Amino acid sequence: MIIDRLIQRITELHNPTVVGLDPRLEMVPAHIREAAYAEHGHTPRAAAEAFYQFNVGLIDAVADIVPAVKPQVAMYEQYGAAGMDAYIRTIAYAKSKGLIIIGDIKRGDIASTAEAYSDGHIGRVDVGGEKSAVFGEDFITVNPYLGYDSVEPYLQNCKDYDAGLFILVKTSNKRSGDIQDLVLGEDGRTIYEKVGQYVSDWGADMIGGSGFSAVGAVVGATYPAQAEKLRTNMPHTFFLVPGYGAQGGKAEDLAVCFNKDGIGAIVNSSRGIIAAYKLAAYKDTFDEAHYAEAARQAALDMKADLRRCISC
Amino acid sequence: MIIDRLIQRITELHNPTVVGLDPRLEMVPAHIREAAYAEHGHTPRAAAEAFYQFNVGLIDAVADIVPAVKPQVAMYEQYGAAGMDAYIRTIAYAKSKGLIIIGDIKRGDIASTAEAYSDGHIGRVDVGGEKSAVFGEDFITVNPYLGYDSVEPYLQNCKDYDAGLFILVKTSNKRSGDIQDLVLGEDGRTIYEKVGQYVSDWGADMIGGSGFSAVGAVVGATYPAQAEKLRTNMPHTFFLVPGYGAQGGKAEDLAVCFNKDGIGAIVNSSRGIIAAYKLAAYKDTFDEAHYAEAARQAALDMKADLRRCISC
Repeated sequence: MIIDRLIQRITELHNPTVVGLDPRLEMVPAHIREAAYAEHGHTPRAAAEAFYQFNVGLIDAVADIVPAVKPQVAMYEQYGAAGMDAYIRTIAYAKSKGLIIIGDIKRGDIASTAEAYSDGHIGRVDVGGEKSAVFGEDFITVNPYLGYDSVEPYLQNCKDYDAGLFILVKTSNKRSGDIQDLVLGEDGRTIYEKVGQYVSDWGADMIGGSGFSAVGAVVGATYPAQAEKLRTNMPHTFFLVPGYGAQGGKAEDLAVCFNKDGIGAIVNSSRGIIAAYKLAAYKDTFDEAHYAEAARQAALDMKADLRRCISC
Repeated sequence: MIIDRLIQRITELHNPTVVGLDPRLEMVPAHIREAAYAEHGHTPRAAAEAFYQFNVGLIDAVADIVPAVKPQVAMYEQYGAAGMDAYIRTIAYAKSKGLIIIGDIKRGDIASTAEAYSDGHIGRVDVGGEKSAVFGEDFITVNPYLGYDSVEPYLQNCKDYDAGLFILVKTSNKRSGDIQDLVLGEDGRTIYEKVGQYVSDWGADMIGGSGFSAVGAVVGATYPAQAEKLRTNMPHTFFLVPGYGAQGGKAEDLAVCFNKDGIGAIVNSSRGIIAAYKLAAYKDTFDEAHYAEAARQAALDMKADLRRCISC
């Protein structure tokens, strides 16, 4: 199962890190941007092409030290069809380098619509009898606000095509509590705890040899007390943990997301790795022509930082 | 403001209907499908092209009798970049025929990511100083699970570019209650009522001459008692109402979504209009070559059905 392969790769590399491929034009070195503008003008297509070239450099630089990458589809989608093409090519390139792909798409819709998202992203679409894998992510993120029937089509495709999910439970952003921290009358639990329970139940029949389910949860590094509670309540649920680094989450805070064997979560860093060459810690050593080397160094430093607190 | 224009158009046409452009290949008449397969093979691109041609016929058939169309992005996105291209071309064509566009995208993500979705869909993307409107929807649907800061970038673009939102409050699907109907300890309200309150507050400074805010709510026709409560609590919030027809919502049930002047909501029908030629009520009169005429008749019948109960 894909969750077992993810955990195996984390263990082999001693590195529970996923690199977030969330490019923005201001992060892309000038030589890549200018080449794209020269070919396509100042168009959405140029931005998309610049992102793809930027990503190829990043993927080559980190593929042997991290288990997975997490492209954020919004960054590509904003540039329309050309952007989606760059997103899909990024996934294909990363897969060709042995990386596991977590598509950060956060989709959520009624069942008949969820089926379309699910078939496109982790399943197959059928056109006149020919089946195609269109996006080809290994995992995708999903929003639970519409309830079980909105998630069920993804669960089915996870079984049919050996894919996995990370369902939003407690997100890393400042105002995540507006809904997620509301307290229920029935038992004094919060919404995020209730959703955690749902996620755990929905994934109960998809637990792999590792002891973890193919149905995981998104749990922000910025809320360690909440993460600790969820880790206890959801022993078979793997966590995707955003919020490390730029958003303020520290390695010390993250230890609660892991079990005593140092397993249980994968921690995302985006800007802190892919735009490392712009950060104070790296910019004197790496110029923008060496953005990929800077990213590799930042990924190694992140691994070392996590391993101070987590023994995987 | 866009909300005022939508209401004006509903009033001019005496028709609070939006046609959901949610195509599936099995709905597309064989002559359109076969032409696309002949040109592109049995590929995702062929499916996308078939959808676009199907939509052109539908749009031509209904543009003078309905105020708006609501393309569901999932149906297109499942076919990758070619699908997104068909989605964008559908929007452009519908706009050229005077229709208002509600993009059913249900996006929801942390602020920095929401900004990318918002710029692409309802704002502008900036590439080397050139600004482009990529998707060009007038309204989009948004998921509130991540809280205020995940919605704020859309609110800003609504102001800057005269766009609008419909935020999910109480959705039409069977299991929408899994989260939305949970009861809060603080005051015995449900989550959907609390979210309704948020939506009302978030849109309070964007109320147009019509008395309604550019920030609307998605409220399912399948839950009339809940819709009635929300209509009372949210007098300045316009509702996008899915669930009429195929999902089981009836015109009688919908009246509660409107105020005493017959204003307050727009009701979606997808399959019941775009695939009318396959339904028992129309298939003897219209063959698949006349799918667009069947859709026009179904839209007229829906208008008549709604006007039995709503006097707009």
